[in-house]
Amino acid sequence: MDATFPFVKGHGTENDFVLLPDPDGSVHGDLDPALVARLCDRRAGLGADGVLRVIRTEAYDDPHAVAARGSATWFMDYRNADGSTSEMCGNGIRVFARYLVDHEGVDPSRPIPVGTRTGVLTVTPDPSGETFTVDMGEPRVLGETKVSVGPAAWPATHVSMGNPHAVAFVDSLDPAGEVGPLHDPPAHDPAVYPEGVNVEFVVRRGRQHVAMRVHERGSGETRSCGTGACAVMVATALADGAERNTPYRVDVPGGTLHVTWTDAESGGRVLMTGPAVLVARGTVLRNWLVDPTTDVRT
Amino acid sequence: MDATFPFVKGHGTENDFVLLPDPDGSVHGDLDPALVARLCDRRAGLGADGVLRVIRTEAYDDPHAVAARGSATWFMDYRNADGSTSEMCGNGIRVFARYLVDHEGVDPSRPIPVGTRTGVLTVTPDPSGETFTVDMGEPRVLGETKVSVGPAAWPATHVSMGNPHAVAFVDSLDPAGEVGPLHDPPAHDPAVYPEGVNVEFVVRRGRQHVAMRVHERGSGETRSCGTGACAVMVATALADGAERNTPYRVDVPGGTLHVTWTDAESGGRVLMTGPAVLVARGTVLRNWLVDPTTDVRT
Repeated sequence: MDATFPFVKGHGTENDFVLLPDPDGSVHGDLDPALVARLCDRRAGLGADGVLRVIRTEAYDDPHAVAARGSATWFMDYRNADGSTSEMCGNGIRVFARYLVDHEGVDPSRPIPVGTRTGVLTVTPDPSGETFTVDMGEPRVLGETKVSVGPAAWPATHVSMGNPHAVAFVDSLDPAGEVGPLHDPPAHDPAVYPEGVNVEFVVRRGRQHVAMRVHERGSGETRSCGTGACAVMVATALADGAERNTPYRVDVPGGTLHVTWTDAESGGRVLMTGPAVLVARGTVLRNWLVDPTTDVRT
Repeated sequence: MDATFPFVKGHGTENDFVLLPDPDGSVHGDLDPALVARLCDRRAGLGADGVLRVIRTEAYDDPHAVAARGSATWFMDYRNADGSTSEMCGNGIRVFARYLVDHEGVDPSRPIPVGTRTGVLTVTPDPSGETFTVDMGEPRVLGETKVSVGPAAWPATHVSMGNPHAVAFVDSLDPAGEVGPLHDPPAHDPAVYPEGVNVEFVVRRGRQHVAMRVHERGSGETRSCGTGACAVMVATALADGAERNTPYRVDVPGGTLHVTWTDAESGGRVLMTGPAVLVARGTVLRNWLVDPTTDVRT
């Protein structure tokens, strides 16, 4: 047999993933980090920003999956492109939910609880089936700081969405302009961000409408960052003095997200709505798994 | 039905392709350039350097396919990542041949003639089934020129492999060194290369063994360039005063190629041997084909 295991390729605002269906955990066992890295290789593999293994909480002995068993049937076993485990991904979980609806028979008319390494999160399918709303939790606004690219510097708002962000308003996102092509990480205050920071550059496009570029720590500039879009919305709403529950549109290079910061009565949580697209499904071929050229790269 | 048409993903020294099986031309008709570009998108599609449609010469009315009918059963309908048609690809044709052997029942014990837009080319499978030798035709050596990156300049040999190359010997390929990260095209003499040029930077690794980086016109720096490896071998053999039929190893960032320039008796042709890997096969999903987010990008 030439075929090995199945996969699905999908993306949310061009943050892209290889999904590995493995409901009972019998296909991938502990999921080899080296296999994940090879799958994510954009030239020698399938290519993706990360892998989302689709596994039932009952079938996985990861402590986070065990803890989620009472409240979620499915666990998003998210891995970075380098093979390391990762906690959550606001774009990935929409794609994960779409896979559950389209291919695992999950009911799209009700909110879907999904186990993750940051706890059980709720994803609500839009009636169209094309977009999904993710409860991204409560933001923490941690004051003002500064970021810079070469000689250009901007004030920035420090927002935590579980991970650290610096949100800077700029005059233009043009790579030929003040922000530049972002080949290197923007400079930041290491006392404020001892473990690095995701930096968002923002321009206003209209009322309750902004556009952003993002440099993600460890990844470089990306087409989209779900937590970054939420941090941008929070910083913008604060700058606008906007009331809670005011919806904002946030354009990222890979598409459009809609973000709302709810009031205290609704938990003060950030809800992010965006598209989820499944591109293709298939099987990985055995000749690639045993590719003799893999270990002789120069 | 959620499935639409089949695909195979493969690569040769990390020059990667989406193959579209379409033996009788009934799946893709004229093959929409916009579909090709969407398939090659590395975030929103499957991701590839190009598309190789696999079609029988008898089933395709492209004049090159018609001309090949007497001598080749199969035609490599090669498209660039932007959807435009392209003539030939030394890495792609190995992957194409491997697909024919693995999935279309073509006999691997004999040379395989393949119709292309530069004529019928012969690909010979290695007995292992892992590597393939391509007859890349006769090189033309067109004298000396010069290339530069910022303040650094090097003499370069002008070699045509059907497409134009400038081969420059350097002290180091390190992106932190003299050649740099190659974000921009190297400067060249527009009188020598009115339509641009592929620039190869080369270091010696040992006897009959070199390593290279390449900046391809229109594509930027790539992991591999088959014609570039051939041009490098020709320029090196000339610099070495090597006899014809002397085999050279050429390391590219994505793997290893072996290149030989035959003597006049054998046609003075360049033979390139390298790996071909099929990664996965599957079907494109309907929800992606009709993705409503495709046309609202910012």
